[in-house]
Amino acid sequence: MSLPQRVRLVEVGPRDGLQNEKLPISVADKVRLVDDLSAAGLSYIEVGSFVSPKWVPQMAGSAEVFAQIQRKPGVTYAALTPNLQGFTAALEAGVQEVAVFAAASESFSQKNINCSIAESLQRFAPLMDAARQKGIRVRGYVSCVLGCPYEGDIAPAQVAQVARELLAMGCYEISLGDTIGVGTPGKTRQLIDVVAQDIPRERLAGHFHDTYGQALANIYASLLEGVAVFDSSVAGLGGCPYARGASGNVASEDVIFMLQGLGIETGVDLEQLFAAGEHICALLGRQNGSRVAQALAAARG
Amino acid sequence: MSLPQRVRLVEVGPRDGLQNEKLPISVADKVRLVDDLSAAGLSYIEVGSFVSPKWVPQMAGSAEVFAQIQRKPGVTYAALTPNLQGFTAALEAGVQEVAVFAAASESFSQKNINCSIAESLQRFAPLMDAARQKGIRVRGYVSCVLGCPYEGDIAPAQVAQVARELLAMGCYEISLGDTIGVGTPGKTRQLIDVVAQDIPRERLAGHFHDTYGQALANIYASLLEGVAVFDSSVAGLGGCPYARGASGNVASEDVIFMLQGLGIETGVDLEQLFAAGEHICALLGRQNGSRVAQALAAARG
Repeated sequence: MSLPQRVRLVEVGPRDGLQNEKLPISVADKVRLVDDLSAAGLSYIEVGSFVSPKWVPQMAGSAEVFAQIQRKPGVTYAALTPNLQGFTAALEAGVQEVAVFAAASESFSQKNINCSIAESLQRFAPLMDAARQKGIRVRGYVSCVLGCPYEGDIAPAQVAQVARELLAMGCYEISLGDTIGVGTPGKTRQLIDVVAQDIPRERLAGHFHDTYGQALANIYASLLEGVAVFDSSVAGLGGCPYARGASGNVASEDVIFMLQGLGIETGVDLEQLFAAGEHICALLGRQNGSRVAQALAAARG
Repeated sequence: MSLPQRVRLVEVGPRDGLQNEKLPISVADKVRLVDDLSAAGLSYIEVGSFVSPKWVPQMAGSAEVFAQIQRKPGVTYAALTPNLQGFTAALEAGVQEVAVFAAASESFSQKNINCSIAESLQRFAPLMDAARQKGIRVRGYVSCVLGCPYEGDIAPAQVAQVARELLAMGCYEISLGDTIGVGTPGKTRQLIDVVAQDIPRERLAGHFHDTYGQALANIYASLLEGVAVFDSSVAGLGGCPYARGASGNVASEDVIFMLQGLGIETGVDLEQLFAAGEHICALLGRQNGSRVAQALAAARG
């Protein structure tokens, strides 16, 4: 058993998290959250997305957020950009790195972004060209890698194909997303085994949802398979859009607690991260979704 | 990677769970819970304990519960018995199997049961003798195996010693309890490695608390180490007595979801178990502590 010595955490709370919270929060509060996260030691923060506010009202004001955050040296501040228009707006806002989003499920792609997987990849082509010219790195998300709300099981080979295409288009890293949280450790390992037949493991990241409580077990399984980058969300921000009231993104605090126990470095101060999560949860009027945060809060009365 | 084909779950909700819930429930409601659990396919249920109601008021009426449950063939109905007096009462109530409880931490033993570890084992001696004469199997719990609320880290060798002594006294199985939920997968594997130097792995069980969200990762780690018996509590009944408001026992539903995904048989019907958990949570006026149950409930609106 040889685990990575160091893990890079991609903090998606300000984007994937807040996007799925009911209560909108102000630009100032988003800026505070991002600055709290960088102060806690997170080195990669997905700050927002450049999409039409008609579609994702929670992400309005991403440019203002980028203008007001205190950029800490060594921290990557990234944004989700669905197309060239979003990419151009992101660049104008000073975004250092962007992410694109494809599905491993045809049904999910159709219902979520109204086009086939192939069409969604074609739409990214102009963005990828522009990013190459500007020297901007692009991260690729693949959703529904361990199950789809419409199709059920998804073949690992299908995931591998989408991942390969994103890599071929220029993505430097592929984040494998268990969008509905149905994955379990054995299937996670099988998936990584199949995807890693064509893609070096150091280019893979795990993005696990804790909807069925499986996220940490899946992250441990991924570590055993040599994956060393994981997406997580402070306080477990962001519910599951397919089951309101259920958990979504795995909580960053819970991941860090496990990694610390495994002796794996993350560079994150758990106490500071806990405080950041408590603050944003108070603003949102929601319970902190991190079990670690719940235990820390309970221990303090 | 070779995992067990079948796992035996020890359902501790009616005992370890209810014992730590604030709201007392009636004998009739406890009977209903136990019968719901056996109907769902659980083959081992810790129904109650035979201790002084002065110390554990929630466990008053265990004899009545045993008298009223519908005993299903093939199901073991067990009870916790701290001493010979409790054992005698348990036998009179028709208990088929009992469990005794020791700590791996001296400080915890002193604060919890007011004697040293060695003294606590001596107290079991008359009980073990009586059980041998009556042909009653005794299960041994060891608490604080991955950390103590008073001492912090606990040496695996210390756990191994207590486990060996319980086995030597006649226990057929040792349940290793992460009482405060601070264990992580690597430490779990190290612990099992050390304990298994002297004790066959098929005599070990894992008892994980989900206080810091680590329980399923630790169970997966234990499976990789060849452990095939796990304690869990329907709906995650029973909070953490050392941090009110935090999670305690890992939820049976969450364990079963993972085991199903791993292709490991348990004999349990998840839907029926979910219904049993929802019922008891409604009686207790508490949120269901199982993420799987939360997701199933949310999906049904």
